[in-house]
Amino acid sequence: MQVSAAIISEMLNGTIEGNPEVLINKPSKIEEGEPGSISFLANPKYEQYAYSTKASVLLVGKDFKAKQAIEPTLIRVDDVYGSITLLLEQFGSEAGLANGIDDFAKVDESAQVGSSSIGAFSVVEKGVKIGNNSKIFSQVYIGENVTIGDNVTLYPGVRIYKECVLGNNITVHSNTVIGSDGFGFAPQADGSLKKVSQIGNVIIEDNVDIGANAVIDRATMGSTVIKQGVKLDNLIQVAHNVVVGENTVLAAQAGIAGSTKIGKGCMIGGQVGIVGHIEVSDGTKIQAQSGVSRSVKKPNTAIYGSPAIAYNDFLRSQILFQKLPALQKQMLEMEQKIQELTKNAALDSEKV
Amino acid sequence: MQVSAAIISEMLNGTIEGNPEVLINKPSKIEEGEPGSISFLANPKYEQYAYSTKASVLLVGKDFKAKQAIEPTLIRVDDVYGSITLLLEQFGSEAGLANGIDDFAKVDESAQVGSSSIGAFSVVEKGVKIGNNSKIFSQVYIGENVTIGDNVTLYPGVRIYKECVLGNNITVHSNTVIGSDGFGFAPQADGSLKKVSQIGNVIIEDNVDIGANAVIDRATMGSTVIKQGVKLDNLIQVAHNVVVGENTVLAAQAGIAGSTKIGKGCMIGGQVGIVGHIEVSDGTKIQAQSGVSRSVKKPNTAIYGSPAIAYNDFLRSQILFQKLPALQKQMLEMEQKIQELTKNAALDSEKV
Amino acid sequence: MQVSAAIISEMLNGTIEGNPEVLINKPSKIEEGEPGSISFLANPKYEQYAYSTKASVLLVGKDFKAKQAIEPTLIRVDDVYGSITLLLEQFGSEAGLANGIDDFAKVDESAQVGSSSIGAFSVVEKGVKIGNNSKIFSQVYIGENVTIGDNVTLYPGVRIYKECVLGNNITVHSNTVIGSDGFGFAPQADGSLKKVSQIGNVIIEDNVDIGANAVIDRATMGSTVIKQGVKLDNLIQVAHNVVVGENTVLAAQAGIAGSTKIGKGCMIGGQVGIVGHIEVSDGTKIQAQSGVSRSVKKPNTAIYGSPAIAYNDFLRSQILFQKLPALQKQMLEMEQKIQELTKNAALDSEKV
Repeated sequence: MQVSAAIISEMLNGTIEGNPEVLINKPSKIEEGEPGSISFLANPKYEQYAYSTKASVLLVGKDFKAKQAIEPTLIRVDDVYGSITLLLEQFGSEAGLANGIDDFAKVDESAQVGSSSIGAFSVVEKGVKIGNNSKIFSQVYIGENVTIGDNVTLYPGVRIYKECVLGNNITVHSNTVIGSDGFGFAPQADGSLKKVSQIGNVIIEDNVDIGANAVIDRATMGSTVIKQGVKLDNLIQVAHNVVVGENTVLAAQAGIAGSTKIGKGCMIGGQVGIVGHIEVSDGTKIQAQSGVSRSVKKPNTAIYGSPAIAYNDFLRSQILFQKLPALQKQMLEMEQKIQELTKNAALDSEKV
Repeated sequence: MQVSAAIISEMLNGTIEGNPEVLINKPSKIEEGEPGSISFLANPKYEQYAYSTKASVLLVGKDFKAKQAIEPTLIRVDDVYGSITLLLEQFGSEAGLANGIDDFAKVDESAQVGSSSIGAFSVVEKGVKIGNNSKIFSQVYIGENVTIGDNVTLYPGVRIYKECVLGNNITVHSNTVIGSDGFGFAPQADGSLKKVSQIGNVIIEDNVDIGANAVIDRATMGSTVIKQGVKLDNLIQVAHNVVVGENTVLAAQAGIAGSTKIGKGCMIGGQVGIVGHIEVSDGTKIQAQSGVSRSVKKPNTAIYGSPAIAYNDFLRSQILFQKLPALQKQMLEMEQKIQELTKNAALDSEKV
Repeated sequence: MQVSAAIISEMLNGTIEGNPEVLINKPSKIEEGEPGSISFLANPKYEQYAYSTKASVLLVGKDFKAKQAIEPTLIRVDDVYGSITLLLEQFGSEAGLANGIDDFAKVDESAQVGSSSIGAFSVVEKGVKIGNNSKIFSQVYIGENVTIGDNVTLYPGVRIYKECVLGNNITVHSNTVIGSDGFGFAPQADGSLKKVSQIGNVIIEDNVDIGANAVIDRATMGSTVIKQGVKLDNLIQVAHNVVVGENTVLAAQAGIAGSTKIGKGCMIGGQVGIVGHIEVSDGTKIQAQSGVSRSVKKPNTAIYGSPAIAYNDFLRSQILFQKLPALQKQMLEMEQKIQELTKNAALDSEKV
């Protein structure tokens, strides 16, 4: 694909400054831009590179004001991130999979597979249903009676346990496990632990993306549910009977304990831990590494810390935590003054 | 399976209130109970649902006192959790595996496999021994000279490195890795790091359950040991030469660094980190996200925080952490009062 | 291999005390040493075992002074750890892989494979290049146009996405994923999130070791880069466009968010989290479980805490955190004294 700045500007509904005829054939990062590429400036931290980039075209926000001369042709757009997404779609292309079912896949004869592809050494068990236009890569495991919709991509090594249900437009990256047993054990009198059978499943609704090496456990009874539009990063733990609300985002290595319900549109930072059996309201923002130990009742709250409290309260306390040595010194000085005052008062009263 | 409330009550050694003839065919969660199902009330947080559930039978504790009228037939039992476990076993059923060795498995001719099954695209290397009634799912890797006992279930994608030893009645969920190299590197004069060979193994004793995407590293020398009855959740890290004591439980995403010894019957919360070369006594309870930086010498201690201290001490300090802004304000007020007192004392002494 | 203490001492450039003729055939841990084995004492914590070990030979530091009689023959060396490494190499031996390409591997005919081996049920896609003396174990996935150098070991279940580049002398443990999509989503007006295509790759330079179940995401554009000599432990998250500098070490379960640059020779503890878009200077030491929220500008800095501050500052504040209840008590006492002083001053002034 080779295309002029003018055509890209039109495609993005942008306005152009500089040579509209310059041709580009790929995107590039602003600090690594080469002639023939299009870069972008979305995060102000990278502004310095705008003045030195070798890219032929630079995508900037409508209101960007250059502080120095800029070499590349500029395209100004309302939404830089949205425009990049569109552009990358134009330039990107998924690895084509061999169509149909690979000779080295093992698909049970009772399975119903639409016009989808299944890679080598993948296993599809009894009673599985797969819709159309889905890409099952190599070495994937799909357990008994699993249902998978249309436009689903499962990368190599994904494991889906029996009875789980995946909707449409879903991507799951390599080695992620969906439907493993919830972690339930009943303590016995002799100190040993007896496994509680986990007979529920996992339901993944439409438009969900899941990273690599994540785990979503099946419910003890009923379903663990990942609702529409949820985005889960790598190495995430979702325990049994959890519900994650629409369009909520979890960054890498976060974990949610059993039976907790997360609302819609939450932003959950990396390495966050959330205890079991609580509810987290819609729009909650949880700072990375926080530990959430009780329900968040008010929507759109920002929280921070382990255990987590209101974001600004945490910052205030944290600043003072760092000043504790100074506070202690101040206390010692105060104490000395009090001692002096007490001593003088005693002398005074003697005099009196 | 369809069965009357009376029969279930008898099975659980319970007492019945309501219609003993009502038939049930599955368990259900109390908030989602449908006619024909049996639900339970174990956690008081869910009591509200007892008055609205559509389940036909409700399992409750012996001492439960209803605050409103309850529709379903009640079965009262001594131990609700234990009863659920029994019930789920009755209603649950594992996916039957094809018997014997799948045509698409690769099993070395020197391997000795009892009356166990091995799924498609699994690899069993030289010198492996597998007992009876074990289920090796598809796409599993079992390295050279590994020994596996009876009643062991390895889900798809499990990897067992050479020389490791697994006992009886063990379950390992998908994509967990057992026996990968310990993380040992010797710093060299030029700043580079030279790998220390890891020639030990991992020993998993009887009745151990391990979640998905966990890792247990082999010992540098000797063995990393997971003792009888241990339960490990998903995404757990157990480093080289660690010993985990009988019936200890680790929740998801916890990690134990090299050569540390964990006692029996410990409860280790999610995302806990434990440094290397320490000992944690029997019965230690470690709150989620805690960081344990030194040995826990007294058994049955509860600890919390990063670095972890006694549980109650952490709570007391944490409450004051949250009050630091108020404490600082109080100090400023005290300081002003001291200044006034000092000024007045100076005036007084002038007068005197 | 059976060898005398004298020969080992010579090999390690050590000095011998005791019987130089004693034969040994394996290494052992000091607390488990058996006759015929060689143990070592590197960490003073284990000194007690020196006096009771059954090992035939004991490796100690040049300056070690025994406090009691020692049974085994001693070999004194300058660098105990370095000597162990050498010894383990002598005694250890990697599992031999079948040479060449397994009959059950699926290798695209366009792939160029040197004198390397590829195990059963592995998939090698179009355009892949693999050098010499590399060992691709079973059940590995190597995507389109991936390049792999010489002396690379990929354990079972490793997944390398298309276009990634691996140098020479690299080891990757089971179920690690390299090149999965970076976590990039653009918020839309309706609250949903639109995936940003990830068209970059991952570059792994020479002499890198990577643990099990780790994830290294591909760059949005350009490359995520793991530089020469880096050592990554299990369950690690490296996000898109991150650069990890030469010989830096990350312990298990640590995570680095997008576009962050880590310097050379850093030591990053277990479960550390590092936010995106920052720079961490060469030689930075980050204590386990710390959360790094801003750039570390001065090289060779030690930091600790979440959020992380200078290591010693954290320790000072942390000690006072633990003393907060005592500090509060002290404040109350001071306040009472101030009240008394104020009251007495008022009485005095009345008297005056």
